[in-house]
Amino acid sequence: MEVRPPRSYRLTLAYDGTGLVGWQRQARGVSVQGLLEEALEALEGAPVQVVGAGRTDAGVHAIGQVASCTLTRTIEVPVLQRALNALLPPAVRVVAIGEVPLGYNARFAARLKTYHYALSVGAIASPFEHRHVWHLAGPLDTASMTRAALGLVGRHDFSAFRSAGSSVRTATRTIVRSEFRRARPGEPAWVAPPVAGGAERWLYEVTGDGFLRHMVRAIVGLLVEVGRGRRQVSDVEKILAGGDRAEAGPTAPAHGLCLVSVE
Amino acid sequence: MEVRPPRSYRLTLAYDGTGLVGWQRQARGVSVQGLLEEALEALEGAPVQVVGAGRTDAGVHAIGQVASCTLTRTIEVPVLQRALNALLPPAVRVVAIGEVPLGYNARFAARLKTYHYALSVGAIASPFEHRHVWHLAGPLDTASMTRAALGLVGRHDFSAFRSAGSSVRTATRTIVRSEFRRARPGEPAWVAPPVAGGAERWLYEVTGDGFLRHMVRAIVGLLVEVGRGRRQVSDVEKILAGGDRAEAGPTAPAHGLCLVSVE
Repeated sequence: MEVRPPRSYRLTLAYDGTGLVGWQRQARGVSVQGLLEEALEALEGAPVQVVGAGRTDAGVHAIGQVASCTLTRTIEVPVLQRALNALLPPAVRVVAIGEVPLGYNARFAARLKTYHYALSVGAIASPFEHRHVWHLAGPLDTASMTRAALGLVGRHDFSAFRSAGSSVRTATRTIVRSEFRRARPGEPAWVAPPVAGGAERWLYEVTGDGFLRHMVRAIVGLLVEVGRGRRQVSDVEKILAGGDRAEAGPTAPAHGLCLVSVE
Repeated sequence: MEVRPPRSYRLTLAYDGTGLVGWQRQARGVSVQGLLEEALEALEGAPVQVVGAGRTDAGVHAIGQVASCTLTRTIEVPVLQRALNALLPPAVRVVAIGEVPLGYNARFAARLKTYHYALSVGAIASPFEHRHVWHLAGPLDTASMTRAALGLVGRHDFSAFRSAGSSVRTATRTIVRSEFRRARPGEPAWVAPPVAGGAERWLYEVTGDGFLRHMVRAIVGLLVEVGRGRRQVSDVEKILAGGDRAEAGPTAPAHGLCLVSVE
């Protein structure tokens, strides 16, 4: 039998997280990792392990998730991409594949990740956005939310925004961009436009070297508290310094969040 | 007890048809008419009949469906709209309500209806469009499809595009616009944009005084046959003249279709 050298691949993925249990394989439910591993096993003829750059939660979407795997069976990259997209459900697409040095690990290679969180503020949300946008009746003090978001930029201990039961060693992360702003036409890139007479589209855009579990959603939850006047802009700094999760308030729902890119 | 004069209303509706049995109430499944009638009954305290301008099929969407109803209970229009949107699921939204002369009937009042059918042509469809766009791997001869679409404009007997078992008296309809073209950025208005490296978005836009059951989808099915080279542009005229449904070919799937407006 011919001995083939194994090759490693970097996959760029887009998925609609609606109804999925998230990136990671779980005991129950359909995960992106599980779907990919099953599709790759069918091509490889043996189990394949897939590593993701970001472990998106149940219901969270992605347009630029990155994953890595190693295959021993030689398949041309365009053929591999077509075969995977044929095997995967339409809610999960492989948008690009590249060959990478053997042993490449998408999780360790990730330097910066960008997430978008989509909100619609107003009386009527589009029926075509309800799986991808958090709708709030409003009104919201969006100017204060914009100022509050800026206060999170920098290297901080984000214990106040970590999920209960999270087991990572350190909660220190560096946020290089934290912007709450009105969405431009066509933004965010994965969501259907608002309907006429509907709500205003707003966007929270955050880039950092890593995120704790539920961290982006906890930040958005706090920003909305600020927007509703239940918290002051100055509270954000205090909550960050205090490190108490209970202080930071509610967690925004998963369906507004999308992993946009991994550098 | 105070006797209140009944009032009639014109409702403009947007809905995501995914998982619905269509506009019309059925023995089983969730219909837009049924949802609206239940919500209105809760407000009126008695059964309410809702008439729709277009009977969209199972899985077909709308951004500009029009419906009418008459209520005896006096409710201010903005309150009525808020109450309905609170009672309806997020996939069905009342985007506007106006008071109309008593007895107004949305079905008889409809003069022209416009439908859009969304296609994506290319290797990779966005996972965020799979409920709203018909994805075709291609290639398609889109220039021929554009010419074939133009051939349908005018007053014709559309028997070749009617659904089997349809019971309407006459199949003669007037099409004032029949356009197959590349979608402009942000088109169609209810669908999420394509993902990077994905497919080209195309749009079939049709306006007429009425449509037979499955007629738009049968037209799109034939246009795709032309695009694939299985039919010639000149065949469209022959099929129209022949009036034989079997000749016109396959029916495009419901999920790419949307009722855009009713005049």
